[in-house]
Amino acid sequence: MPQLALIRHGQSEWNLQNRFTGWVDVDLTDEGVAQAKRAGALLAETGFKPVHAYASVLKRAIKTLHFALEGLDRLWIPEDKSWRLNERHYGGLAGLNKDETRAKHGDEQVHIWRRSFDTPPPELPEDHEYHPVNDPRYSAVPRDLLPGAESLKLTLDRVEPYWTSEILPHLKSGEDLIVAAHGNSLRALVKLLFDVSDEDIMGIEVPTGNPLLIDLDDASLAIRSARYLDENRAKPLPPLP
Amino acid sequence: MPQLALIRHGQSEWNLQNRFTGWVDVDLTDEGVAQAKRAGALLAETGFKPVHAYASVLKRAIKTLHFALEGLDRLWIPEDKSWRLNERHYGGLAGLNKDETRAKHGDEQVHIWRRSFDTPPPELPEDHEYHPVNDPRYSAVPRDLLPGAESLKLTLDRVEPYWTSEILPHLKSGEDLIVAAHGNSLRALVKLLFDVSDEDIMGIEVPTGNPLLIDLDDASLAIRSARYLDENRAKPLPPLP
Repeated sequence: MPQLALIRHGQSEWNLQNRFTGWVDVDLTDEGVAQAKRAGALLAETGFKPVHAYASVLKRAIKTLHFALEGLDRLWIPEDKSWRLNERHYGGLAGLNKDETRAKHGDEQVHIWRRSFDTPPPELPEDHEYHPVNDPRYSAVPRDLLPGAESLKLTLDRVEPYWTSEILPHLKSGEDLIVAAHGNSLRALVKLLFDVSDEDIMGIEVPTGNPLLIDLDDASLAIRSARYLDENRAKPLPPLP
Repeated sequence: MPQLALIRHGQSEWNLQNRFTGWVDVDLTDEGVAQAKRAGALLAETGFKPVHAYASVLKRAIKTLHFALEGLDRLWIPEDKSWRLNERHYGGLAGLNKDETRAKHGDEQVHIWRRSFDTPPPELPEDHEYHPVNDPRYSAVPRDLLPGAESLKLTLDRVEPYWTSEILPHLKSGEDLIVAAHGNSLRALVKLLFDVSDEDIMGIEVPTGNPLLIDLDDASLAIRSARYLDENRAKPLPPLP
């Protein structure tokens, strides 16, 4: 029975300051590091032995993965990093805290951005320092794929090909896998795995640094069971499909 | 001009205890961690920007690489890990300190093992816990390639194909690369790069956690210059070929 562990990065500096982060490469806080180490210990307690690891190209996810793998004593497994697992790109909201956003754009607009599946925030111009065309880590990505802002739908649209072509084939081979990513790229994976509607997915939140361990059926890859390993910090999961 | 940084892992627990380590997966000491972080800072000062990273499958090299990449703010570059970059396998000597080895095998024999290019230490039986056939990280490696003990020559023989087929093509494309490995796997790379004789290579030692930064000629990949970035802890390098 293949197992899949999804981990949202531990608390980041901008999580703590309640700022929209997206593709800005902020670091973990000390609390985030502690969460990531605890994630590794909790995964190790279950006997989980992943053979392949995946992360975004943002350091808060990569470091979370490394702390978790160290706890599992499996730093040696292959690790693939992809921009497709990045957080949703928050466009013009990146760097703003919730109060600044409301002051700048109004309560009603902020409510729409927070609740809507397919309304992107304001698009960044290509000459903005936060636009990915100006970051060398994306230099090999075709320019027209690099977003200036993303809705959750757009996030899902670029996560899905990576899931289908890079991760799913390994699960089909029976491999146990670990994926370290972000609130919205993991929401996209949860939507695909649990077959959640566009409407309901906005109500699902994956807590930081708390591994979601999923047991899959060998043949169908249907979810047999799923649980957060840090029960005190768990959030509701969608019903099994 | 492609640049290649070679880093031997920072001080390990068994370096400190003066024990033969080889493929035993011991961790860094606090001093080793500090060396690895300093390696990252020194590399960053030079403006070095690797686009691809390589490490062995042993945590002291992998963690050294991660600390160095973090110092370079380039944790996001692709990372390949291979058993072919592992330390020399010390066979029956693994775990023994220098005094224990002399007491068990005699001064003369120890002198031969230390100075000889092609005399392997005593071979481990396959049922020994330190034999790689019993470690899941090597499960995908053909069994007949997994050593029970290695001379430096045998180490070179298994490092060289990885160098030729995995690393060299990237240098030929003009990429800047970083390799985190071990005393003897790096000795093997230095032998290949500097064209050192079997006899002379035994006198070359790469210090722990001190990046060796090599500038290569674009067309020929001949070495233009090479230097240790921590000058106070540098060791003599072979003459340029």
